[in-house]
Amino acid sequence: MAGKKVLIVYAHQEPKSMNGSLKAIAVEELSKQGCSITVSDLYEMQFEPRTTRKDIIGELYNPEQFNYGVEAWEACKNGCLSEDLKEEHRKVKEAELVIFQFPLYWSSMPAIMKGWMDRVLVQGFAHNLPKCHESGLLKNKKALLSFTTGGDKGMFSKGGISGDIRYILWPMQYGILRFCGFDVLAPQISFAPEHAALEERRQMLSSWEKRLKTIWEEKPITCILE
Amino acid sequence: MAGKKVLIVYAHQEPKSMNGSLKAIAVEELSKQGCSITVSDLYEMQFEPRTTRKDIIGELYNPEQFNYGVEAWEACKNGCLSEDLKEEHRKVKEAELVIFQFPLYWSSMPAIMKGWMDRVLVQGFAHNLPKCHESGLLKNKKALLSFTTGGDKGMFSKGGISGDIRYILWPMQYGILRFCGFDVLAPQISFAPEHAALEERRQMLSSWEKRLKTIWEEKPITCILE
Repeated sequence: MAGKKVLIVYAHQEPKSMNGSLKAIAVEELSKQGCSITVSDLYEMQFEPRTTRKDIIGELYNPEQFNYGVEAWEACKNGCLSEDLKEEHRKVKEAELVIFQFPLYWSSMPAIMKGWMDRVLVQGFAHNLPKCHESGLLKNKKALLSFTTGGDKGMFSKGGISGDIRYILWPMQYGILRFCGFDVLAPQISFAPEHAALEERRQMLSSWEKRLKTIWEEKPITCILE
Repeated sequence: MAGKKVLIVYAHQEPKSMNGSLKAIAVEELSKQGCSITVSDLYEMQFEPRTTRKDIIGELYNPEQFNYGVEAWEACKNGCLSEDLKEEHRKVKEAELVIFQFPLYWSSMPAIMKGWMDRVLVQGFAHNLPKCHESGLLKNKKALLSFTTGGDKGMFSKGGISGDIRYILWPMQYGILRFCGFDVLAPQISFAPEHAALEERRQMLSSWEKRLKTIWEEKPITCILE
C-alpha cells in the first residue's frame, strides 16, 4: 500500500537460496505497491549476535557486576547504546510491518537472528514491564515470520518427527513478538524447498507474492496455543 | 562419580552472576566426585555464533550456491570443519554428561549458545537422518538445561504472562537435545534470582549442589508435551 513502511530482517548467507528469493519477491511486490522498504541483511551486515559490554557506550551503570538487561535498559534511556543498535531501532520505529525471513535452524531462528532479538528488543525500546503484550512498546506495528524448513509438512505435525509446528512458533510469536506488542500476522512457512521440485518451489514463491498483495488487509492471529 | 566426564557449556558475561555461581558450584561438586570437567565458557572464548563460509576449510562442495547444512555435513565427513568446531566436537565426544548453563533470553537460549547448537550439532556429528532421537549420534550421553529466568515461577505457568514453561522447554529439549539422541535429564530452573532475597539465592545454589550429588542415578525425562 502506497506510503507504508516495511522492514525486512533477513538471515541467509546465499542470495540464490529460497530465503533469498522470498526476500527478493517481498521487496519487489511491496515496492510495486508503493511501500518504502528497508532490509536488514544480517549476514551481509555481519550483524553481531552476542550481548556484550560493547553494546554500551561509556560508563556502565554497575561496573562491579555486568548485567546485560540492566545495562542495555539504562543505555537505551540515556542514548548510550552502540551505533548498530540505534540504527536498528530507527528502522523498527519507522516500520509499520516487520517481516522476519529465515531458515528454521533447530526448531527456532538462526543464532544471528536470535542475536537481533536479544540486542535490539531491549527493555525501554520494545517493552517496559508491565508494558508488554497489548501494551508493549511496539504495539500498532505488525510482524510476520516467514521461514523455510528442512523437513516436510508431515514432519511438523502432531506426532511427526519434528513435532507440532505450533510448539515451534510459540516462543517466537508469543514469547518475543507479541510480548513486545506487535500484532502478529500468520506465519508464512515454506516447507522443505530443498527437496521440492522446481514447480513446487515456484508455487512457494508465487503464493507468498499473492499473499503480499492483500497483506495490509490481514487481521492478526491470537498467538496462543489453547 | 569418579572418572565420569562432564562438559559444561556456559553462557554468561559475568562470573559474579547467578549463572556464574551455578557453573562454579557444578565444577566444584562434580570435581569432588572425581569427575573430569571441561567448561566451554562461550563469552570468554568469544565463541562465534554465526554460520558462515568460514566454518569450512578449503574448497566448498558447491561453490555456486552456499548451503550451510550441506557444506557443514560434507566438511564434517572430510575433516574440513574449522578448528573451533573440531575442538567442541572433541569435548562433546568425550563427555558422558553435557550441562548447558545460561540465562533465558526471549523464551530461549542466548544467541551465543544458539550459535553453539547451530554450528556444533551438525549433520554427520550429532545426527544423520534417519539417525535421530533414540538413534541420534549422541545417544548414550546425558544432557541437561540449567537456566535462570527474569520472571518468577507464576509468570511461567499456564495463563502466566510468559506462558507455560513446558512450551519454552520443548524446542530446546525435544527439538535439539533429544533429536541428537541425548538422554535428557530434568531441567534445573532457577526462577528470578535477580528479584530474590540473598537466602533464596543461596537455596537455589544449594538445591543445585544437592541434586548434583545424585545426578548419575537420575533417569531421563520423556521430553514430550502430551
